[in-house]
Amino acid sequence: MKYISILGSTGSIGTQTLDVVREHDDELKVCAITGNNNIELLREQIIEFSPMLCCVMNEEKASALKNILPSNVKTEIMSGMDGLIAAAEYEKSEIIVTAVSGMIGLKPTVAAIKKGKTIALANKETLVTGGDYIMNLARQYHAPILPVDSEHSAIFQSLMANDKKSINKIVLTASGGPFRGKNTDFLKNVKVEDALKHPNWSMGKKITIDSATLMNKGLEVIEAKFLFDVEPEQIEVVVHPQSIIHSGVEFCDHSTIAQLGLPDMRVPIQFALFYPKRLNNSYKSLSLSEIGNLTFEKPDMEVFKCLRLAFDSLREGGTMPAVLNASNEVCVSLFLDKKISFLEIGDLNEKIMNMHKKEKIESIETILSAEEWTKRTINSLLKN
Amino acid sequence: MKYISILGSTGSIGTQTLDVVREHDDELKVCAITGNNNIELLREQIIEFSPMLCCVMNEEKASALKNILPSNVKTEIMSGMDGLIAAAEYEKSEIIVTAVSGMIGLKPTVAAIKKGKTIALANKETLVTGGDYIMNLARQYHAPILPVDSEHSAIFQSLMANDKKSINKIVLTASGGPFRGKNTDFLKNVKVEDALKHPNWSMGKKITIDSATLMNKGLEVIEAKFLFDVEPEQIEVVVHPQSIIHSGVEFCDHSTIAQLGLPDMRVPIQFALFYPKRLNNSYKSLSLSEIGNLTFEKPDMEVFKCLRLAFDSLREGGTMPAVLNASNEVCVSLFLDKKISFLEIGDLNEKIMNMHKKEKIESIETILSAEEWTKRTINSLLKN
Repeated sequence: MKYISILGSTGSIGTQTLDVVREHDDELKVCAITGNNNIELLREQIIEFSPMLCCVMNEEKASALKNILPSNVKTEIMSGMDGLIAAAEYEKSEIIVTAVSGMIGLKPTVAAIKKGKTIALANKETLVTGGDYIMNLARQYHAPILPVDSEHSAIFQSLMANDKKSINKIVLTASGGPFRGKNTDFLKNVKVEDALKHPNWSMGKKITIDSATLMNKGLEVIEAKFLFDVEPEQIEVVVHPQSIIHSGVEFCDHSTIAQLGLPDMRVPIQFALFYPKRLNNSYKSLSLSEIGNLTFEKPDMEVFKCLRLAFDSLREGGTMPAVLNASNEVCVSLFLDKKISFLEIGDLNEKIMNMHKKEKIESIETILSAEEWTKRTINSLLKN
Repeated sequence: MKYISILGSTGSIGTQTLDVVREHDDELKVCAITGNNNIELLREQIIEFSPMLCCVMNEEKASALKNILPSNVKTEIMSGMDGLIAAAEYEKSEIIVTAVSGMIGLKPTVAAIKKGKTIALANKETLVTGGDYIMNLARQYHAPILPVDSEHSAIFQSLMANDKKSINKIVLTASGGPFRGKNTDFLKNVKVEDALKHPNWSMGKKITIDSATLMNKGLEVIEAKFLFDVEPEQIEVVVHPQSIIHSGVEFCDHSTIAQLGLPDMRVPIQFALFYPKRLNNSYKSLSLSEIGNLTFEKPDMEVFKCLRLAFDSLREGGTMPAVLNASNEVCVSLFLDKKISFLEIGDLNEKIMNMHKKEKIESIETILSAEEWTKRTINSLLKN
């Protein structure tokens, strides 16, 4: 039996992690779950999985959850960052699935790492903002970091039994999002509703917009750089609309190993939970002859500026990726609130990066203060 | 320094193996080479690589080779099966590249296995005819068998660090040959010259015809069954004309790992010679966006009967794959001599299989007598 905590159990990755638990309920036990606001779903999850701990970020919602739970439920209810960290540090949990979205994932992930727990990493911001600092911390505390993201899981699986030093390049595939092949003129007039339609994956709003701007792929480039310890130049983004080849690695002998499958996040989630074992499941088998056709093209980094900015931020290093990430978080929220246009997401991100003086990351506080600076700066820019 | 013997150094795999030696001449030393008739090329190879031993199968040609060698050459010249076995057993050689084509590869491979040498297997007939017998022998003598064939190398690489028991299916890709998509009416009128044009690989005549009938893929199915210890039902042949995905494995968790690359046999040859290390080389990098498009389709086993016969022979087991192989060897040679038509290759193979009473393979003699029976039977059929 493996004991796990799921930080962000009500989101897309969280609910799919619970699907994996359902599939393997004789092998997995959920100790702790956390959510933001969706107490109806948390209530159902508590009744089904009987975790020992549940954290609701919103304090009022936490009280409300207590009131709607059946009286025989023994699950402890906590709230706020303390509760989130308690779920991350939960003693019995061996694996912490970090499926919360946003910078809020950073502190609990660091807490779990410091307890030497295995991190099933689904929170992009951890490595995007923490990079080397997090990777060094994980090494120091012997906390394995296993990627959950389909692309990074594919790279991880392709690297198995291969020396990381023999990597020639990482081939990171991208669906291209809903605006693949479009030019700047088209993107000028993109509405929120258009950007929320992702061709292959059903995900949260933030990540769906990031898929439309290719910022999501940019964040994955940053993650890949730190996770697999390569240079930015060794990461090649290839647009592959069918999302069948989930990514791969070309080695120094010019042999490429790639991981393929139907788009189903439960496969990489299950892989992270049971690594290095592969367990049977009831998911669908890939038939290449049924798929018929896989296509590949270069991403247009002029039109999709955010992807280029991600590479730029890596070359700058230090706090620059964290600033790009924080800026983008604000910009996407402004776009969703219809306060800036689709193209202004990239433009504003670039402006902020140009204004930022990068610093070396010595602690989590450096990251958080860079985030503060970014938010402050965007606000003052918008006021003027 | 790794010491190697190359059985069949003048053929397609042999010469490409020597290309790999040129690329890594500080890491590889050729101890022994062998050829059939091409003494001009053997002469060049002896002068360039200074092997200690060279075997020419044809005795007269062996004498002729001695006469055209410079007087300062110290290479011992042998001939016939004794010479071939001497090259296979050559004491200093750690790795034996079995790049001879045909049943003639069986005896020297067995000899090398019994000396515990690593077999870089390029001779299809070894496993097609010997199957379990050879695999058991290799286990008994601790002789690793490393596939050189691009498809089997791809499967081998995809299996690295994965438990063989977790294989769901092997995805064996096939270029489809020059007659992909054609129907029986078209194939009725196929000429030798048409069948010798392979779209992706430049190879010997026998294997090129086998690619056109899909018998080559059938033989690979048989090899894969024994090499990776799977059931015939676990092998899925997928026609993939671009030959970029060289094959792969779907595991029980529905994650598929595949090996990709530009069609270049030197990559799997190098992999077999240096396994488990991957060494730098000057070969071309794969760019999926330059390739643009990969297509996949089901093979038509009614039109390309030979592929179906291969699966049938595996289900029968025993000497049946060896009989199919021997029958096919004769039929291809009859086709090349314009004595039978293209479609008669499959028809005659099927007839012979129907006539054969399979036996359990207890020794190499069982295989050779099944081969004898096959040849005798085809000859008597053709006389009537």
